[in-house]
Amino acid sequence: MKIARFIVDGFACYGQVEEAEVRAIQGSIFGDYRVTGLTFPLSRVKLLPPTQPVNFWNIGLNYQHHLESRVEEYGEGLRERIKHLNPFLKGSGSSIVATGEAIVIPPGLPDFIDYEGELCIVIGRPAHRVSPEDAPDYILGYTIADDVGAGPVWFHGDFTNWRTKTSDSFAPVGPWIETEMDPHNVDIIVRVNGHEEQRGTTRDMVRNCYEIVSGISRYCTLHPGDIISTGSPSPSRPGTSRMCSPT
Amino acid sequence: MKIARFIVDGFACYGQVEEAEVRAIQGSIFGDYRVTGLTFPLSRVKLLPPTQPVNFWNIGLNYQHHLESRVEEYGEGLRERIKHLNPFLKGSGSSIVATGEAIVIPPGLPDFIDYEGELCIVIGRPAHRVSPEDAPDYILGYTIADDVGAGPVWFHGDFTNWRTKTSDSFAPVGPWIETEMDPHNVDIIVRVNGHEEQRGTTRDMVRNCYEIVSGISRYCTLHPGDIISTGSPSPSRPGTSRMCSPT
Repeated sequence: MKIARFIVDGFACYGQVEEAEVRAIQGSIFGDYRVTGLTFPLSRVKLLPPTQPVNFWNIGLNYQHHLESRVEEYGEGLRERIKHLNPFLKGSGSSIVATGEAIVIPPGLPDFIDYEGELCIVIGRPAHRVSPEDAPDYILGYTIADDVGAGPVWFHGDFTNWRTKTSDSFAPVGPWIETEMDPHNVDIIVRVNGHEEQRGTTRDMVRNCYEIVSGISRYCTLHPGDIISTGSPSPSRPGTSRMCSPT
Repeated sequence: MKIARFIVDGFACYGQVEEAEVRAIQGSIFGDYRVTGLTFPLSRVKLLPPTQPVNFWNIGLNYQHHLESRVEEYGEGLRERIKHLNPFLKGSGSSIVATGEAIVIPPGLPDFIDYEGELCIVIGRPAHRVSPEDAPDYILGYTIADDVGAGPVWFHGDFTNWRTKTSDSFAPVGPWIETEMDPHNVDIIVRVNGHEEQRGTTRDMVRNCYEIVSGISRYCTLHPGDIISTGSPSPSRPGTSRMCSPT
C-alpha cells in the first residue's frame, strides 16, 4: 500500500495511491482509519511530505563505500567512530519539503549543494527500547529523502552541521510511504537533471533498518510519524547539483 | 504575564499563572486567545513543558566563563570556532519533560549526568530572516531549561551528541513562560538537592537573545512554540548531579 499526504481544495489529508489516483483516507494512519470511496487524480492534488515528524533522524556513513571514501579523506580514525551508531537530527518543520519543491540555498552558503539519496524508515507507533527482532512491528513503511548538504561543517568554520544540513528546504521527503517492501533489497538511484549520479543498494547497509530502530530506541523514544533517513550509499559530487541560484 | 501549560481533569490547556492559581486560557497563545474566569489551584494541576516545539535549538558556549574553561580543556583553537553561531538540535517529544519530572539515565550511559541551567527563548510567530532589531517582535517570552548531558561525546566513542544530549527526559523545561522581562539582565542559579552549584548572569552572554533569533532565522525558519536554549554560564561538575540511578 502506498500512503500519500496531500492537499486538495485547501484540505490536507492522507490517501491511498492507486496508479494515477489517490483515494482519501478517513482517520489516522497511525491508529484507526478506513479507505473511503472518494478519489482524486494525482495531477489535481498537491503532495505534502508524507509525515510531520516529531524528530527527523539521520544516520551518517551507513554504507561501506561511503565510509571508505571518507576514510580516504579523513583517515583511518574514522573506522573507530563508526563502531557506534551515530545518528544526528535534521530539523523538522521548514527543513522538510515535498517531492518536486525547490531547494532554496540561503545567502551565506555556497551556490552548490550536495545530494544524497537515502531510504527512510517511517515509524508507526511509539518505540521505546525495542529489539531488532521486534522492530518491524514499529515500522509503518518506507519512503525516500534527499539528505541535502552545503558542504562539510569545517568548510564554513562551524562545529555543528546546523546550516549545512538543516537550512529551510534541505530535506525533500517523499513522494509517499510504501508499506509493503523489503527495505534491505532495493536499489537507490539519484539522477540530477536526468543524469544518473549515484547508484547503490540497501543490501550494502552497515546497520540494517531494524538495528537502527532498535539502537535509537534504546535512548530516544521514536514517535509515530518520525522519519529515520538511513544514510547515502555514496557521497555526492559537489557542483553537479545546482538546483537553484542563491536568493 | 506567566503562561503555563498544564493538565487538569485529563484535559491539557494553557493558563495564566497568578500566585497560587492558574486561570484557563481559551484559544491559541500563538494567535487569538482570551483569559477566562476559570481558575484552578496550581497544586491541583500537573504542569506540562510550556510548549511542544517543532524544533528545540540549543546554543553551545555562549558565555565567556564557559568558553574559557573549555579553552583550557581543548585548546585555543576553540576560540576560532566560536566566532560563528553554532546551534545544535536537541530532540523534541520524549526528550522534553516538565518541571519536577524525573531524569532517567538509560542503560549504556554513566550513572552521573551533567546539569546546565539555561535561559530559553520561546518563539511567538514564524521568524524567517529577521534582523536583531526586529527579533523581539517574534519572541513570545522566556523560560528555563536544564540542558542535561551525559558527558562529552568522545567519552562514549561517539561523534554526534545524540545520546549524551537527547536521551528521553534529558531536557526539563519550565515551569512556565514569562512574557515580561529583560532577558539580558537575569541571574541563573542552579541548585542540586538544595546546594548552589552554578551562578551566572545573562549580562555575560556572548551573543544576546536577539542576535541568536536573527542568526538562526537566516537559515532555518523558527516556528511558534520553538524553544532556543541560550547556553549555560558555566560547565557543571559531573558526579554531583545524581538525580536517579540507572534503570
